[in-house]
Amino acid sequence: MKLATLRTAQNTTSAAVLRKDGAAVLLDAPDVGALLDRPEWRKEADAALHREAETVNSEELDFAPLLPRAGKVVCCGLNYGDHIQEMGRDLPEYPTLFAKFADTLTGARDVITVYGSSRVDWEAELAVVVGAPLRHAKETQAGAAIAGYTVANDVSMRDWQNRTLQWFQGKAFDATTPVGPVLATADDFPPEPTFQVEGYVNGELVQQGDTSTLVFGPARLLSYISGFTTLRPGDLVLTGTPGGVGMGMKPPRFLAHDDVLETRIEGIGRLVNRICISGDTAVSPY
Amino acid sequence: MKLATLRTAQNTTSAAVLRKDGAAVLLDAPDVGALLDRPEWRKEADAALHREAETVNSEELDFAPLLPRAGKVVCCGLNYGDHIQEMGRDLPEYPTLFAKFADTLTGARDVITVYGSSRVDWEAELAVVVGAPLRHAKETQAGAAIAGYTVANDVSMRDWQNRTLQWFQGKAFDATTPVGPVLATADDFPPEPTFQVEGYVNGELVQQGDTSTLVFGPARLLSYISGFTTLRPGDLVLTGTPGGVGMGMKPPRFLAHDDVLETRIEGIGRLVNRICISGDTAVSPY
Repeated sequence: MKLATLRTAQNTTSAAVLRKDGAAVLLDAPDVGALLDRPEWRKEADAALHREAETVNSEELDFAPLLPRAGKVVCCGLNYGDHIQEMGRDLPEYPTLFAKFADTLTGARDVITVYGSSRVDWEAELAVVVGAPLRHAKETQAGAAIAGYTVANDVSMRDWQNRTLQWFQGKAFDATTPVGPVLATADDFPPEPTFQVEGYVNGELVQQGDTSTLVFGPARLLSYISGFTTLRPGDLVLTGTPGGVGMGMKPPRFLAHDDVLETRIEGIGRLVNRICISGDTAVSPY
Repeated sequence: MKLATLRTAQNTTSAAVLRKDGAAVLLDAPDVGALLDRPEWRKEADAALHREAETVNSEELDFAPLLPRAGKVVCCGLNYGDHIQEMGRDLPEYPTLFAKFADTLTGARDVITVYGSSRVDWEAELAVVVGAPLRHAKETQAGAAIAGYTVANDVSMRDWQNRTLQWFQGKAFDATTPVGPVLATADDFPPEPTFQVEGYVNGELVQQGDTSTLVFGPARLLSYISGFTTLRPGDLVLTGTPGGVGMGMKPPRFLAHDDVLETRIEGIGRLVNRICISGDTAVSPY
């Protein structure tokens, strides 16, 4: 089952379930996070698929960020062996984690406008959506609580990220992390599925990763995070990016104004985001 | 004016304004964050002070975290000259920032229960509460948007904090950062006020800082943060801790079970939190 959060009017969104033909049936919830908070969400979405209902054609879908009000967005860095080596580091004993805000997220087809950075880099990632509360959860329990999977790009402002020891400020620019277009629910996949993650810039493949090579897989990550903070339905965990980021190239390469960033995971979907680098320094004193 | 968020019943809180005698008048808002979201919050609170109303005696106040649903909690590290030198680092050009969640916060008199860490350290801090939306704000605009000041202790699990390069996981344990007891509104102070921040363990003074020595003061911090993400009424910014943390002592000293952590800022209030170190490893697989 594929769920999405769609913009339906000015400042209004709705959760939706996608039919096989790509058309969407709207659900009675403002977004996928609100939907997941209901124990009966699968039944609700399934019933909507099978009833005669008004639909939105696939060409007319306006994807909001999948979880526009996510309470927690936790990201893992340095989680693919090849990317870790690219950055010159050893395989980790513990996951390197940092946080984003719901405001950091943006839609699957949105223009990403960046103010005040000249080193905008890409990080194609598999993201995991939490479907049940988790606290001090063991890995099996965490695995069972995965609602499903989505596509994200942890677009990173490397100049800000590297201003200090803590990456957060370069990772939390408003509306710069596309997430979506859909939540592909876990029941559509075998247990512990693996995915091919791909990142493209202007059609050129720049990143490729196999999530079977993750040092910390989805269930292990959720279990670990739940060891210090409660995860709830609609929370989002980004699993890290494979090798091929711009910063690791020789010479380093960053996104330019009007570049098109594409992020694909087969079996889930793709993000296509045009980059707008704003030279409007009047609005950004830094 | 002093505002608080009080627990009024099981799972219920209310914003309140404190009278000079310490008694609280309840306001028609679930917490201080919700109150600040209303343009007329000062008038509302002021009117409540001057009308005949039911009050809660000062001895009966049950302080919830001041901002139990804060959308953004941003913390600054390495912001006092003496603490920076204690940690062996140079004075910074940019603020070192990281995030916490609303779930990380706890009340001014609450027991702080820590699961799975044996290196629990203290960080007494001045915290700033945002009173108006800020985006790409200059320093003067940011200063004018400060609703007021409160007391916080950025209790840090040093073992988790130092597992990786990113501090976040050691800073985001549920219900470990006390914030309160009150918001002292900015209009009670001169512009750019300075505060004496003090931390005590079992009555012994361990930290003392003067916020006039902050490298990045409140307005500058808010302005900087607003350069990458929107701040909104009820968001919280922790300004960093002065020298005297346990990790910096020789030998290092950490909080033990049943220790009492006290955090004081004259003119605002004090936090008194008993520490509970849980040995219940059955609930924490890490």
